[in-house]
Amino acid sequence: MEIKMMKNIMEANDRLAGENRALFRDRGITVINVMASPGSGKTSLILHVIKSLGSELGIGVIEGDIASSIDAETIDRLGIPVYQINTGGGCHLDAKMIRTALQGLTLRKKSLLFIENVGNLVCPSTFDLGETFKLVIASVPEGHDKPFKYTSMFMAADVIILNKKDLLPYTDFERESFYKGVRAINSKAPVLELSCRTGEGMQTFISWLREHVREEL
Amino acid sequence: MEIKMMKNIMEANDRLAGENRALFRDRGITVINVMASPGSGKTSLILHVIKSLGSELGIGVIEGDIASSIDAETIDRLGIPVYQINTGGGCHLDAKMIRTALQGLTLRKKSLLFIENVGNLVCPSTFDLGETFKLVIASVPEGHDKPFKYTSMFMAADVIILNKKDLLPYTDFERESFYKGVRAINSKAPVLELSCRTGEGMQTFISWLREHVREEL
Repeated sequence: MEIKMMKNIMEANDRLAGENRALFRDRGITVINVMASPGSGKTSLILHVIKSLGSELGIGVIEGDIASSIDAETIDRLGIPVYQINTGGGCHLDAKMIRTALQGLTLRKKSLLFIENVGNLVCPSTFDLGETFKLVIASVPEGHDKPFKYTSMFMAADVIILNKKDLLPYTDFERESFYKGVRAINSKAPVLELSCRTGEGMQTFISWLREHVREEL
Repeated sequence: MEIKMMKNIMEANDRLAGENRALFRDRGITVINVMASPGSGKTSLILHVIKSLGSELGIGVIEGDIASSIDAETIDRLGIPVYQINTGGGCHLDAKMIRTALQGLTLRKKSLLFIENVGNLVCPSTFDLGETFKLVIASVPEGHDKPFKYTSMFMAADVIILNKKDLLPYTDFERESFYKGVRAINSKAPVLELSCRTGEGMQTFISWLREHVREEL
């Protein structure tokens, strides 16, 4: 019974995600589902993109958090449309929450929409939101073994960010082992090394965005 | 129906956790449920304790992971009884898994048992395992805002470790804000600052352990 119910939940989610995807396509919105552990730099990355591309693209953000609206307030202060979802204990976003958020979010046609998922390297990977790309952030101080341990997340990624590269000299992070772990389960996703704190490597990600947003804009 | 089922699951878990707790008490085992984000230093902390107290106390470890047995193998090489639980996608441990693990683990009477939960700052906090203490690790590079965002985890903690304090000079971590967040929701749990990498502050945690294990040993 438990398994059957989980199957029903996932089927309902997939159906709604498909509807979201069609809706995004119709309106020319490129959607990036940003997933990572707590404190890996999801909001910092989004803030960098707003700073770099905010004048040339329409950008919107859906913020997913268990509690609080700290990040949404930061984004709101930049004049960017933002919608806060508080899951109240829930460990991931689902397609229905995104549908509701869209009704509260005024987006220009042909926008870039970031969905900042709940900080969690486990559950969000299995819930399709209708996004165009799944972006997974790993960060140097979390260690090089994360792809070996949180396989479904790194498998699902269309693009992987390795953040906080400025901390490489102060940690025992082994780059080679990290890449080995990623490539064992995901042969396609580019891995972009950068630091949201220093800005190093950010341009490569901005270029990736420009390239992947372009087709739909 | 979803809610009712969740209630049934939680009730069944609480019942089993109560049985685990009685069993631990009878055998004089002090159990520490270690919870944190991925890569915060759960395994490193346990390894330090093994090194410091392994000769004076019986120690055992239950390792919870989505996939892999990397950490269990490291602990096994030290000659410490260890049982690996792979949740196969599940984002937390539950009382039933612990019961099963106990059958595969030979512990001396009056031992210290670490349960390393799945790396996740959300779901594990709501599942009682029958542990004596809930230990939550936050780490400096995750940022000072974590207690504001993952409230149920920091609320549940009996003791909080702030790990990776050696990275304080290289991050924007604001200590005052972190403590403010913790104290807003948890007035009792001591916060112990340390670095598993350099060993700084570790003795304070070892003293805490000695003090809190003693009564039952």
